[in-house]
Amino acid sequence: MDYDALFTEQLDALREDGNYRVFAELERRCGQFPRAACHDAANPGEVIVWCSNDYLGMGQHPSVRTAMKDAIDRTGAGAGGTRNISGTTHEHCLLEAELADLHGKDAALLFTSGYVSNWAALSTLGARLPNAVILSDALNHASMIEGIRHSRAQKLIWKHNDPEDLDRKLAALPEGSTPIVAFESVYSMDGDICPMAEIVEVAEKHGAMTYLDEVHAVGLYGARGGGISERDGLADRITLIEGTLGKAYGVVGGYITGSAPLCDFIRSFSSGFIFTTALPPAVAAGARTSIAHLKTSQIERAQQRRQVKRLRAKLDACGIPHLDNPSHIIPVMIKDPVKCRQIADILMQQFGIYVQPINYPTVPKGTERLRFTPGPLHTDADIDHLVGALNTLWQQCGIARAVA
Amino acid sequence: MDYDALFTEQLDALREDGNYRVFAELERRCGQFPRAACHDAANPGEVIVWCSNDYLGMGQHPSVRTAMKDAIDRTGAGAGGTRNISGTTHEHCLLEAELADLHGKDAALLFTSGYVSNWAALSTLGARLPNAVILSDALNHASMIEGIRHSRAQKLIWKHNDPEDLDRKLAALPEGSTPIVAFESVYSMDGDICPMAEIVEVAEKHGAMTYLDEVHAVGLYGARGGGISERDGLADRITLIEGTLGKAYGVVGGYITGSAPLCDFIRSFSSGFIFTTALPPAVAAGARTSIAHLKTSQIERAQQRRQVKRLRAKLDACGIPHLDNPSHIIPVMIKDPVKCRQIADILMQQFGIYVQPINYPTVPKGTERLRFTPGPLHTDADIDHLVGALNTLWQQCGIARAVA
Ligand SMILES: Cc1ncc(COP(=O)(O)O)c(C=O)c1O
Ligand SMILES: Cc1ncc(COP(=O)(O)O)c(C=O)c1O
Repeated sequence: MDYDALFTEQLDALREDGNYRVFAELERRCGQFPRAACHDAANPGEVIVWCSNDYLGMGQHPSVRTAMKDAIDRTGAGAGGTRNISGTTHEHCLLEAELADLHGKDAALLFTSGYVSNWAALSTLGARLPNAVILSDALNHASMIEGIRHSRAQKLIWKHNDPEDLDRKLAALPEGSTPIVAFESVYSMDGDICPMAEIVEVAEKHGAMTYLDEVHAVGLYGARGGGISERDGLADRITLIEGTLGKAYGVVGGYITGSAPLCDFIRSFSSGFIFTTALPPAVAAGARTSIAHLKTSQIERAQQRRQVKRLRAKLDACGIPHLDNPSHIIPVMIKDPVKCRQIADILMQQFGIYVQPINYPTVPKGTERLRFTPGPLHTDADIDHLVGALNTLWQQCGIARAVA
Repeated sequence: MDYDALFTEQLDALREDGNYRVFAELERRCGQFPRAACHDAANPGEVIVWCSNDYLGMGQHPSVRTAMKDAIDRTGAGAGGTRNISGTTHEHCLLEAELADLHGKDAALLFTSGYVSNWAALSTLGARLPNAVILSDALNHASMIEGIRHSRAQKLIWKHNDPEDLDRKLAALPEGSTPIVAFESVYSMDGDICPMAEIVEVAEKHGAMTYLDEVHAVGLYGARGGGISERDGLADRITLIEGTLGKAYGVVGGYITGSAPLCDFIRSFSSGFIFTTALPPAVAAGARTSIAHLKTSQIERAQQRRQVKRLRAKLDACGIPHLDNPSHIIPVMIKDPVKCRQIADILMQQFGIYVQPINYPTVPKGTERLRFTPGPLHTDADIDHLVGALNTLWQQCGIARAVA
């Protein structure tokens, strides 16, 4: 059978829709972030990265790098085993303690990524809790959706960020259900933030467990970087808080935190936790240093907020429409995959600005966008340069402007 | 609802069966592997690790460490994004080229782990190929099982390493099926090796795609470390070869290799590839250095083989039974979870020997074992020390000996 023909057919369909993805090949240069070299044949040269999830530039922080290099020299490159079979190192245990403390929980459990932490934790909870019903926010991330799907538990989708709809759905559950309310704090594609207090109240009213993804909030919100649940003083009312080490913390990996029995339960029964090589101790050491730094340092968060505000104001001044939200994420809607890619290509080729066009399946078809994530290391001049480029493009291409 | 009570109940059941897991907390010391410090309160002190999957000690190889540290200094700690959104770096592309070359394939695709590569690739193939039927070896790894399950494709299990059973099952498939034969080369718990030529012949006869997990073989077999498929000259007849960067290569991460359309297909449609932060460039750099080293250097493999042979011979001489197999893995069957844990505890406490007791769900209940993985860095004296300790224990505990 000609398998390649089957693959090519589906790839061609993607291409026709304008949804075929081309990755930009970058080379970050330590100390110069958000500047990076671009290795694409079409666009060699230097670019300014405007779509990184290394939100605070911690990926190049000297103390994070030093912690990683020291750990490599002390203990080597990899963990050498699954957590059970020789792969649990002192660095993993220290990091888990740091994470539990970050969210004020009894325990934490590390995974190879945030994706795996969501997938593994939700699939285990959904599969092993008797009569589990997972109530999932309509815009939850793919990793949660796949975890819920994998669990084969009953799934109910509630309207995005709508505690009243959640309340109705919880009220309608049959006696004896074990409800798990799964949601995010900061939704990364629209940049909106959930009404956490209301959601928690509704969940408590119905005795439901709460599962919160703080992937786009940890390190960024709360005085110690504990996320929106810290900022809003709600962490102790949430059953499980999940996060990543790969975005604001600048390294890689994922985790959950919660009660000791909860973490021990996932540790003991979750395939995605058990059957995989542990993260390198150096990754754990780097992440721990980054978390510890952002527990006390406010500079990065403050400067990020300043630059986010500044970019928004400049966009407003030019009438370039962007989604209004209270977070650090600035989406500029284009609503067409081909146009979105074209604008991104021109920004890259003519202005040295790298912003990835966001298309399906990351966002629904027809909601294609550019998604800007200003950080503390973008200068005022960088922002002026970006807005100038967008302004030129909006003039040239006749893209709709905001009505002033 | 008291969720913790639900968790505790299931944990208690594990404890009663003797299947509750306690992780050893280690601290490897670069340059001294397989020696490591043990942080367990009950067993502080130095241990010799006998169950690592850092099979060749590449995790402490100076050139791997240097490559990682240099990459950290050049480009920072993390990738800062998913592969699509700013997370593809030059190091990722170089590593993918190195991997494609390793297996003589057109293309390769990196994942955060071997687990994720199996799960993501099989779930995508099974879900998107029309009328897919996945024929899975009975002893396939959890990551493949979960991927197949997630795909919701039809699944048929064929008898472990039995090409005739596979042949019968393929012959019975209805017209128009898209069969995918999924299997491993080295099975890590028994250490047996599949009859690859026969399996490939059967698959070819029926026009089936072949999906091969070489996780416990890459770096170890074949003149360039390409695994059993290289050793047996069969790589070009296998559709997809999957592997890990976390075992013989000593770092972390997973991959698939195959035709360009195949890799592009998984790249474009696989949730587990798309929606997650890319591996740190430093991990990619370390893994690439390790692969390149083992493409030419034979010393590590030769010395490993010598020590494997030596340990087997010494065990035989004492009448300590171990599974006969042609690989580098030496399982000593205990067949009881409590006894297995007790022996491991005594080895640790009295002899400074760390070998994790392997229990359910990693192996079926009743097949609990100790699993020794001698490497090039275990000395002859280490082997004598291990066999001496086992001999003492076998005398003290009256464990069955092999009939000479
Ligand atoms: C909301 C959300 N959860 C989880 C993840 C996965 O985290 P990680 O990148 O660490 O796999 C992401 C993005 O990658 C995300 O946006
Ligand atoms: C056969 C097999 N495949 C895949 C994996 C997963 O690889 P990784 O540890 O890189 O996640 C493992 C073990 O961990 C394995 O034994």
